[in-house]
Amino acid sequence: MPPTQPLRVATLEWRGDRLDVIEQTLLPGRLEVRSLRSVADVVGAIKALVVRGAPAIGVCGAFGVVLGLQQGLQQGGADSTEHVLARLDEVVHAVGEARPTAANLAWAAGRVAAAARRGTSAEEVRRLALDEALRIRDRDVESCRRIGEVGRTELAGAGRLLTHCNAGRLAAAGIGTALGIVYAKAAAGDPVEVIAGETRPLLQGSRLTAWELAEAGIPVTVIPDGAAGAALAAGRVDAAVVGCDRVARNGDTANKIGTYALALLALAHEVPFYVAGPMTTFDPATAGGEGIVVEQRPGDEVRPVGSGVGEPEVAVWNPAFDVTPAALITAFITDVGVLRPPYEASIRDGIAEAARLGLRDP
Amino acid sequence: MPPTQPLRVATLEWRGDRLDVIEQTLLPGRLEVRSLRSVADVVGAIKALVVRGAPAIGVCGAFGVVLGLQQGLQQGGADSTEHVLARLDEVVHAVGEARPTAANLAWAAGRVAAAARRGTSAEEVRRLALDEALRIRDRDVESCRRIGEVGRTELAGAGRLLTHCNAGRLAAAGIGTALGIVYAKAAAGDPVEVIAGETRPLLQGSRLTAWELAEAGIPVTVIPDGAAGAALAAGRVDAAVVGCDRVARNGDTANKIGTYALALLALAHEVPFYVAGPMTTFDPATAGGEGIVVEQRPGDEVRPVGSGVGEPEVAVWNPAFDVTPAALITAFITDVGVLRPPYEASIRDGIAEAARLGLRDP
Repeated sequence: MPPTQPLRVATLEWRGDRLDVIEQTLLPGRLEVRSLRSVADVVGAIKALVVRGAPAIGVCGAFGVVLGLQQGLQQGGADSTEHVLARLDEVVHAVGEARPTAANLAWAAGRVAAAARRGTSAEEVRRLALDEALRIRDRDVESCRRIGEVGRTELAGAGRLLTHCNAGRLAAAGIGTALGIVYAKAAAGDPVEVIAGETRPLLQGSRLTAWELAEAGIPVTVIPDGAAGAALAAGRVDAAVVGCDRVARNGDTANKIGTYALALLALAHEVPFYVAGPMTTFDPATAGGEGIVVEQRPGDEVRPVGSGVGEPEVAVWNPAFDVTPAALITAFITDVGVLRPPYEASIRDGIAEAARLGLRDP
Repeated sequence: MPPTQPLRVATLEWRGDRLDVIEQTLLPGRLEVRSLRSVADVVGAIKALVVRGAPAIGVCGAFGVVLGLQQGLQQGGADSTEHVLARLDEVVHAVGEARPTAANLAWAAGRVAAAARRGTSAEEVRRLALDEALRIRDRDVESCRRIGEVGRTELAGAGRLLTHCNAGRLAAAGIGTALGIVYAKAAAGDPVEVIAGETRPLLQGSRLTAWELAEAGIPVTVIPDGAAGAALAAGRVDAAVVGCDRVARNGDTANKIGTYALALLALAHEVPFYVAGPMTTFDPATAGGEGIVVEQRPGDEVRPVGSGVGEPEVAVWNPAFDVTPAALITAFITDVGVLRPPYEASIRDGIAEAARLGLRDP
């Protein structure tokens, strides 16, 4: 498959009355589609990581609000429309809380709700909400495309990229953020290969990143997360590029657990460390990393599969994300260009530019 | 079980004609003993990580040479004794190559061979070899005890210890190195709890360290390897303590993959980073880390269990160890005391002291 083609099956696809998504917990062993028909389906799928990746869950959350409205409005009548709109905050809250760290999720759900509230009839509410969800999806495709192009230029000399988790097609409606750069390089004929940290506990690197790059014919080498330092020390990496779940006003960045160590290791080896993401991931309401809520995941994700370590004496600490201090980040690769330090200023300008281009709210 | 008692089953136990070892690949689900009766059994068990941990495989390798001699000498006759001694180099080489990074392994096998060569009859060869293997085992017990006491004093103010892999009872004939300090603290009534990195790919942290600490009633929390940075940033760690497989003359240290990142993270958070090990792990013949041979392990250890990622497009890089530069190490906790920078001098003095105490060769 040529590297610029979409996946054989879309990560998410709106089907008029439902959202079809790839069941990512089954990859790479099985490629199956799950149909989401209600808010509960969407919240459940996001919590269980059936759909994951900040841009993808943003789009998924947007359609979740649409599904919630459809459910409510099926009961019919003008009273019902008012009633449904009155309950919209609950729906938005439920969607946003499914994974609290991702900035895009609460944002996207809130956008669709705001659009719906402009409707005066059930029909209009439905149409405005759906239009907004489709717009969010299309913007994601466009944002990924832009990030790919911006990154391709910025990383022109860097063919061997280290990444973590999955910030690719499976994490977005478009070609992805960190891996969007990889696909843009491949499409332009630039040499590119990827070292993918396996990303414990849920192995998004070895399960998802390896799978989608292999599908695209791009060379990929999986390493245990602990081997990143050895790979850098051995001179195997030209640049590190990761995605992001929430970026604070000062540039502190929440991303998949383990990202912080990569940033520190990259600095020690004078390898540039990039964070790729759309401007919707930037959260100017949060001043710095200490203000980012980090989701705690169940301990069973970490306990060895099939082992007897159900022993209650053994506790598990399983934060889904860590915070990489802005000082360790070489630059952000975004849908409005490269943001460089000092970040307070460049992020503020980036948000303004994204708003001007219609890629996010001011 | 009080924390200073041995495990219910010994990690290794000499039974006159065989070495019984805990089958560590089955832990924590099943506690089974495997009997090793030949050099091939010993080499196989070390390669397959049935027995692992630098001190433990040193002791195991020592008995491996004894078993090799017993096998050869069973054929009887003085010619046979000469023949067996002539083939001893092969046996030592086979044992040492089972895991090339561990310094203790080749050292212990060589020690037993040298003792055997002093024998003039089959009976004497057998006796001298066995005596030397038993001495190596007893020294390991003593070295672990000393490391525990030295570490207890050095880390008197540090109750919350971060460790990696397993450097405990399962990694030694004695109470372990890094975890020997934990047991010494517990035995003295000092407060102690452990954060254990799970240690991908083979999960020695979540499978072995968690199991043996839980057996001893010591609080342990398992984290994904990538969460160490978050744990340090959250102020959950007073000191990091790991074992070691080979320490170069300048203090550069080979240990389980992922150790290097911990050391760098600890430095960033001004948390002391200690390496614990017997002086037999120090290798003055190797000048620095670049001279340490790092064993590469099979890619299948990293591929997701039960997944379809047998795809040939997905490569795996799986080095068993990394090298932590001496500059990141606060101090070494050894069986002759604490070694501090500058390491060339303190390691030289430590080796001399260990030789004086009969804990290693000069």
